[in-house]
Amino acid sequence: MTPDCPTPYHEDEVVLLGHGAGGRLTAELLDRLVLPALGGDGGPLEDAALLPGRPDLVISTDSFVVSPLFFPGGDIGSLAVHGTVNDLAMRGAWPLALSVSLIVEEGLPLAELRSVMESLGKAAQEAGVPVVTGDTKVVGRGAADRLFVNTTGIGQRHELLRPSAASARPGDAVLLSGPIGLHGTTVLSTREGLGFEADIASDSRPLHRLVQALAPLGDAVHVLRDPTRGGLAAALNEIARDSSVAVEIEESDVPVPQAVASACDLLGLDPLVVANEGCLVAFVAPEAAEEALTALRSRPEGEAAVRIGEVLPQGPHGRVTLRTLVGARRIVEMPLGEQLPRIC
Amino acid sequence: MTPDCPTPYHEDEVVLLGHGAGGRLTAELLDRLVLPALGGDGGPLEDAALLPGRPDLVISTDSFVVSPLFFPGGDIGSLAVHGTVNDLAMRGAWPLALSVSLIVEEGLPLAELRSVMESLGKAAQEAGVPVVTGDTKVVGRGAADRLFVNTTGIGQRHELLRPSAASARPGDAVLLSGPIGLHGTTVLSTREGLGFEADIASDSRPLHRLVQALAPLGDAVHVLRDPTRGGLAAALNEIARDSSVAVEIEESDVPVPQAVASACDLLGLDPLVVANEGCLVAFVAPEAAEEALTALRSRPEGEAAVRIGEVLPQGPHGRVTLRTLVGARRIVEMPLGEQLPRIC
Repeated sequence: MTPDCPTPYHEDEVVLLGHGAGGRLTAELLDRLVLPALGGDGGPLEDAALLPGRPDLVISTDSFVVSPLFFPGGDIGSLAVHGTVNDLAMRGAWPLALSVSLIVEEGLPLAELRSVMESLGKAAQEAGVPVVTGDTKVVGRGAADRLFVNTTGIGQRHELLRPSAASARPGDAVLLSGPIGLHGTTVLSTREGLGFEADIASDSRPLHRLVQALAPLGDAVHVLRDPTRGGLAAALNEIARDSSVAVEIEESDVPVPQAVASACDLLGLDPLVVANEGCLVAFVAPEAAEEALTALRSRPEGEAAVRIGEVLPQGPHGRVTLRTLVGARRIVEMPLGEQLPRIC
Repeated sequence: MTPDCPTPYHEDEVVLLGHGAGGRLTAELLDRLVLPALGGDGGPLEDAALLPGRPDLVISTDSFVVSPLFFPGGDIGSLAVHGTVNDLAMRGAWPLALSVSLIVEEGLPLAELRSVMESLGKAAQEAGVPVVTGDTKVVGRGAADRLFVNTTGIGQRHELLRPSAASARPGDAVLLSGPIGLHGTTVLSTREGLGFEADIASDSRPLHRLVQALAPLGDAVHVLRDPTRGGLAAALNEIARDSSVAVEIEESDVPVPQAVASACDLLGLDPLVVANEGCLVAFVAPEAAEEALTALRSRPEGEAAVRIGEVLPQGPHGRVTLRTLVGARRIVEMPLGEQLPRIC
């Protein structure tokens, strides 16, 4: 995916919606344009990075542009807390502090801004993480779409957890903490008024306590990833690529709520590429799989945790396959550019 | 300024451009809406905050929405580095790491995005601070104005420096590291095609080495502040308010470049309220003033440092006055909502 000598873009090319969707186009933009411009010194731009000279601390940033601002199960405020808390958690870290930066479109009703800020404050309080600093910018009508929220978080790593997308090993069990597809289909259905939003709600929630429950397993936890933009398909492909392994999952073991399946059928979407905001994928050593499942199920947000597959003992590096209900195998591709813009 | 029991806004009020301008409207929005929603636990939302449990570390966040993206002396990329490095520096901290989060409008030429990222990378390298993590979101045409950049920084405090806007003392000397008004007038002139941009350039630059030069003075450095949004008038008013002191400056001692003065005359602007991105105000104990000036002038970015005033031995708390060229006194008010939107 990352050529040694990346081809520069033509100078007349422009940014596409898909460049922000978390799939192949996003990876290309990073590899070809952003990372070369920033120089090699900073290392790879990961979702959460170790702080130089402070290897116990992790930093993560995310800008939230979800449309609409409010949807069943959450809003841009709670999502901005959960998204960053979860990015920290996926590096095995407990959140210490958040910053919040707003870009507000002139004319946004103050009542809506207040709702969002109250939801953000409540989500931060429930997650037990203080908002310590912030910034507010206002731009003229038409220069932004209502409200964008950036959160940046600092986390402290659990002493024994060192998960990384590059640490999957042959034989690992692939665990999933809950059903997929709820966030993306809820936001899309709300935005487009498709009617599914009466039956489903976003799974947006913090996952750091679920990760804390896994902490006693220590080294046996190889990879943690929350399948947000690009869904489970993008998360598994990134892990398979970064760890140079082949991953196989069982279609029948992947929990897809009926309402999500119906919505995806109607929209021609694969639930595997739909964004989630409240579940995680864990790759754990096979001998620790049962203990890890028990730990996940000990928390409400992990009570539906299941084993969905494994890392194959051998196979093409970077390949993700799905064993279908009828026993056939199909390749799960890295999404090109998600069909669902502005989902987070 | 901050009533004990803030009046809530009427529910039909909307966000105004001035709410983001760094003046009284911004303070009201924070005091009445944002801070109550976030609860009292997080403490005040300062530009840079101490990390809970890690008092040697400071965190600061800023979203940059400057228009146009490119202007004489800089662009949104270099500005995003300098702005956050400087916010850290004003808390007496050296930058350890930056995160960068982009919100890109669909259709932005990749060549422009590359220019910005290269400038950002160069500015970070020159400041000696690595970009360790990032995020990219793309929104549809018309949902954002080209490009917004958030940077969040982590800094480590100099051991002896503990500057705070609340630490000004009667008798303090008020120092200014360089001329004012360049950034705001340059951006405005470029945006509106006024022609002044041929003669002036933004002063955007990192100030952490200037602060480092002050570090040996330790406790004698009471306050550091970079007069960005709202200009010198807002910075001095915030310090006077937070420290409960009266501040007086001499008009003839405040360096205003001729081109800035001409532009402000034409536009009906007071140079005191125009944003700067490359100078700082230092309040230092009177006996340390000469040593501080020498330290500031030892660096190229502080070579034009001057003493512009003092904290009065007594006087109305929170009051800032200007002694004019003819010896009269006028009150320097906190700007309501800056006349210059999208200046940073």
